[in-house]
Amino acid sequence: MTDVNPPRQPHVAEGDPFGPDNLPYGVCTTPEHPRRPHIVVRYGDHVLDAGGAAAAFGSPHTELLQQPLLGPLMAAGRPVWQSVRAELRQWLTAPEHRETVAGFLRPLTEVTMRLPFEVADYVDFYASEHHATNVGKIFRPDSAALPANWKHLPIGYHGRAGTVVVSGTPVPRPKGQRKPPNEEAPLFGASRRLDIEAEVGFVVGTPSERGESVPLSGFRDHVFGVTLLNDWSARDIQGWEYVPLGPFLGKSFATSVSAWITPLDALDHARTAPPARDEPLLPYLDDSAEPEPGGIELHITVSINGHTVSEPPFSAMYWTAAQQLAHMTVNGASLRTGDLYASGTVSGPEHGQRGCLLELTWGGKEPLQLPDGTRGFLEDGDEVTLTAWAPGPGGGRIGLGEVTGRIEPAR
Amino acid sequence: MTDVNPPRQPHVAEGDPFGPDNLPYGVCTTPEHPRRPHIVVRYGDHVLDAGGAAAAFGSPHTELLQQPLLGPLMAAGRPVWQSVRAELRQWLTAPEHRETVAGFLRPLTEVTMRLPFEVADYVDFYASEHHATNVGKIFRPDSAALPANWKHLPIGYHGRAGTVVVSGTPVPRPKGQRKPPNEEAPLFGASRRLDIEAEVGFVVGTPSERGESVPLSGFRDHVFGVTLLNDWSARDIQGWEYVPLGPFLGKSFATSVSAWITPLDALDHARTAPPARDEPLLPYLDDSAEPEPGGIELHITVSINGHTVSEPPFSAMYWTAAQQLAHMTVNGASLRTGDLYASGTVSGPEHGQRGCLLELTWGGKEPLQLPDGTRGFLEDGDEVTLTAWAPGPGGGRIGLGEVTGRIEPAR
Repeated sequence: MTDVNPPRQPHVAEGDPFGPDNLPYGVCTTPEHPRRPHIVVRYGDHVLDAGGAAAAFGSPHTELLQQPLLGPLMAAGRPVWQSVRAELRQWLTAPEHRETVAGFLRPLTEVTMRLPFEVADYVDFYASEHHATNVGKIFRPDSAALPANWKHLPIGYHGRAGTVVVSGTPVPRPKGQRKPPNEEAPLFGASRRLDIEAEVGFVVGTPSERGESVPLSGFRDHVFGVTLLNDWSARDIQGWEYVPLGPFLGKSFATSVSAWITPLDALDHARTAPPARDEPLLPYLDDSAEPEPGGIELHITVSINGHTVSEPPFSAMYWTAAQQLAHMTVNGASLRTGDLYASGTVSGPEHGQRGCLLELTWGGKEPLQLPDGTRGFLEDGDEVTLTAWAPGPGGGRIGLGEVTGRIEPAR
Repeated sequence: MTDVNPPRQPHVAEGDPFGPDNLPYGVCTTPEHPRRPHIVVRYGDHVLDAGGAAAAFGSPHTELLQQPLLGPLMAAGRPVWQSVRAELRQWLTAPEHRETVAGFLRPLTEVTMRLPFEVADYVDFYASEHHATNVGKIFRPDSAALPANWKHLPIGYHGRAGTVVVSGTPVPRPKGQRKPPNEEAPLFGASRRLDIEAEVGFVVGTPSERGESVPLSGFRDHVFGVTLLNDWSARDIQGWEYVPLGPFLGKSFATSVSAWITPLDALDHARTAPPARDEPLLPYLDDSAEPEPGGIELHITVSINGHTVSEPPFSAMYWTAAQQLAHMTVNGASLRTGDLYASGTVSGPEHGQRGCLLELTWGGKEPLQLPDGTRGFLEDGDEVTLTAWAPGPGGGRIGLGEVTGRIEPAR
């Protein structure tokens, strides 16, 4: 007997990195309803209309899933996140739901992904010892490579939330001041040293009160999920402006994030011990007695115009995301739903593991050889893509959604 | 004949700094409706329910004024701001409206003021040459007081938008790492060098597109109004953390703003030429040919527990708010409605004009003598208040709403 209405549900292949153990959240529009963004869950190369499915299955969380952004779900807290995740998995995998769920699945290629949450505050850390050491040698050749505070606290600073854009958004080359060493006064123009920074972003769901600190153990309660992030950086602008108050216009023109937020629970099998610490940590940062390891094993790939240029290992990060959260709030700064904080450039110890061109080309002095030419820094038209995977249950892989962006000429 | 229903409208005395030439906006709740914030305009020591009055007078802007926050009005753009301002002035001053408007006025003491807009991104500048020079000497005694870039660009950095609080909100003393010079490793605890920074904040109304720059001449089109701002600073936390990526936890625990946003148009009589520039400016910052002077004459008073400790003159600022806006967007960073950017500490050339305790006490070495004791930095229970006025038409004064906050013990 032939099915008259064959179910649209795809067969997610065994080992698909977007299978039932992943289930990242996003927000999209469809060609039929370009002004009606709605929450979707990625399943293989399809998306599930989460609000539609929730209504069909009579989920108690239907209202949270029938929203134009992830904010209300993110704010609902971890018990709700766990409950929704269990429901989604059930709908997508139970044979008896196959036909119902098929009505809410459609190919990823048919939808337009959007920034899935409103970014509240954006903080960028500097947590890779390899990156910080390399940058210190390049930017401050006459000083110690690592600042004196580096192993005592996760250094971070606030970035511009309003210019966080979703993967696929073009990035116009920024203009600004730069001062080459041989010039007396700064010059103005389009950045000549436009760079990437391969990072991992953490998205806060549950807010906290002003005046209170979030301990290391609060990480899972507050952090909703993980996203890949490219912290575009204009090195010439940054180099001239950043003393003494830190990066500003060298970073604030754009920060790209994946369209997909991977729930923290999907990375349970990727938890790993961070590198050994060289300095004793103050109690609020000391994670040696925490019940689960603070590191996360993520294998990142950086490609330019389709050519792999680096494979940074997130497990090499000195400071963990839980330590960053504890530090960010230890002074009583409150968290809001939608706060986004990023790891800082992920660089490993090897040359092929460096997460930015500044390091890969050693300040432009050792250009990369790509099939389409050499690169010190990015050229107009270059497209940069970050992808990543983490170990999942049963030897499988959990895919993080890609983050990609193409450089447009300065306006 | 005696009025049976004497109108509640107050006689705003001639010369009242909150008279008809000022008309700052705020948002409040009333005891009867504690959960219904609404837009008000300050008039003397009363507030006008702007949405209520607009409906009664059949204003075309009623919907914008019947909101719980200023955002929609701020986003509506300068022609609307001007039109609403003209209406408000008419309602409040025309004799024929006296009775109608009286029904929408009530004493300021009867309402609770709230943060009047949602802060999008918060940027803090460093625009006083006197402040930057003093801080340079105190923090970096072995280097040039002013960084090499200081006279070429208005140095700024992003702060934490989520901890901007309205005047009157208590400020718990922050905890964090500090490293006294005689210690080998950092210590943890409540900040011992808690400070203020007397600043002026600029509130963005009209947004801009990513990739575009706002020229100097765009200042009036984009900036909705002005507010006093206290950028609370924990100097010990800041001193240990800020190299190389700038201030973070030393600032992010709280930033207080006035409940009142003074329209830029109310400061027309206060426009004044900024100090002479020592270095030629790049064209996007060169305001020498602008039709109106970029400086603003604001007379600020800083008091601790009611005792005046400083009177910083805003007219002494080297960089203007228009230059800061042009710089902040020159790289293509977009503006959003609700962006808040602050001038940096306002300090004049005289000792009694310094806008923070770090300068006033020279790093704590020369404590202030107050009637209630000496102060190096702030003690628990101290209440700090900033007030300011600007010249108005006809020799009058335009008052800026005060910003006040009391230090609570660390939690």
